[in-house]
Amino acid sequence: MPLSAPRRSALSDQVIAQLRNQITSGEWPVGTRVPTEPELAEQLGVARNTVREAVRALAHNGLLDIRQGSGTYVVATSELAGVMHRRFAGADARSVAEVRATLESSAARLAAARRTERDLRQLDVLLERRADAWHAADVEAFVAADSALHLAVVSAAHNEVLTALYADLGDVVREALRDQVSGAPPEEGLMDHRRLVDAGRAGDGEPAAAEAAGHALSCPPAGARA
Amino acid sequence: MPLSAPRRSALSDQVIAQLRNQITSGEWPVGTRVPTEPELAEQLGVARNTVREAVRALAHNGLLDIRQGSGTYVVATSELAGVMHRRFAGADARSVAEVRATLESSAARLAAARRTERDLRQLDVLLERRADAWHAADVEAFVAADSALHLAVVSAAHNEVLTALYADLGDVVREALRDQVSGAPPEEGLMDHRRLVDAGRAGDGEPAAAEAAGHALSCPPAGARA
Repeated sequence: MPLSAPRRSALSDQVIAQLRNQITSGEWPVGTRVPTEPELAEQLGVARNTVREAVRALAHNGLLDIRQGSGTYVVATSELAGVMHRRFAGADARSVAEVRATLESSAARLAAARRTERDLRQLDVLLERRADAWHAADVEAFVAADSALHLAVVSAAHNEVLTALYADLGDVVREALRDQVSGAPPEEGLMDHRRLVDAGRAGDGEPAAAEAAGHALSCPPAGARA
Repeated sequence: MPLSAPRRSALSDQVIAQLRNQITSGEWPVGTRVPTEPELAEQLGVARNTVREAVRALAHNGLLDIRQGSGTYVVATSELAGVMHRRFAGADARSVAEVRATLESSAARLAAARRTERDLRQLDVLLERRADAWHAADVEAFVAADSALHLAVVSAAHNEVLTALYADLGDVVREALRDQVSGAPPEEGLMDHRRLVDAGRAGDGEPAAAEAAGHALSCPPAGARA
């Protein structure tokens, strides 16, 4: 692992692992301001120096951003996500949307052939959760269910590399599209996601791929309602 | 930039930039054993400590691998390539091939709509170079021209994120497929690459995408002849 920098103590590695786990588990989502050094030192029962070393290592790897005078923030949920975030943060929104469409439509095509019964049940649950949040105008719940639904479609392709790339490109996608769109998604957005899942259930690869590409390129992303 | 770790000197940052440039420029391709610490210190006119610090930083970022007793080797040509290499080195070959097909076919479809006259001239040059190397049974030249041709097709999509992902996934692709295939590519491999470029010239997105996906999923990669 890249974190084994020279002269780092075993204790520091342990603290890195603990903080990293807070991030990857979703307990500290992207945007979270993490506790201060003294707070972390007390919570974890280690010296402030050890905490500082761990925080710097995670900043170096792109998971945390240390902002002078403001605090330390979570900016990515994995090393790959952190690198992609730095590399593509300034990329134009069309390029990012096309890559999202590329990965989603390919995944939908593969998922139509490979989805299990368990995948389909999970997709139905997420479709319903997404629709409920839409009708309740619960923005946070809608954003969470929409992201989970899209990731579940990609996961149903059962391709570990595709899933990791898609999940870790997520931060870039949200950032690039956030300012691009405005207004609430139309009701049509509920129907076409249902069509995507139905095409996957029927094993129809091409319609599933076309629906997925259409969402990624033309629909406002979930975050747009926030 | 992620390299600005605590307490690193300006001189060290300068040496990091110099070594990084050797790698990204292609002067030290992947697999290169870099000069020893004393050699680099003399070449760059800096202290050995400064060289050591720079080499460790680049190892930390995944570009170099320090092998005790053997030397230091270039393992990736960018930070993103380094992270993807570590993340996907153990991924199964089918997953990697599918992601390659996904990116190449999407790029070919976009390239059919966006390729410039300059792109087409470049593709013709690379097609010819690849065919010449094949007929001359010049393995090294064939590998180089084949890689350059595929990257040129992706670049012709004029999508910076797609191009960066594809280029930086390259090391993983080569590693995952190297052992999977054997024997020389069939003569058919010359014709279908010509069809790919012709479809792009004609602006035919779907045939171009299908050809590209076919190559990525079924043809032995260039490295297979080596």
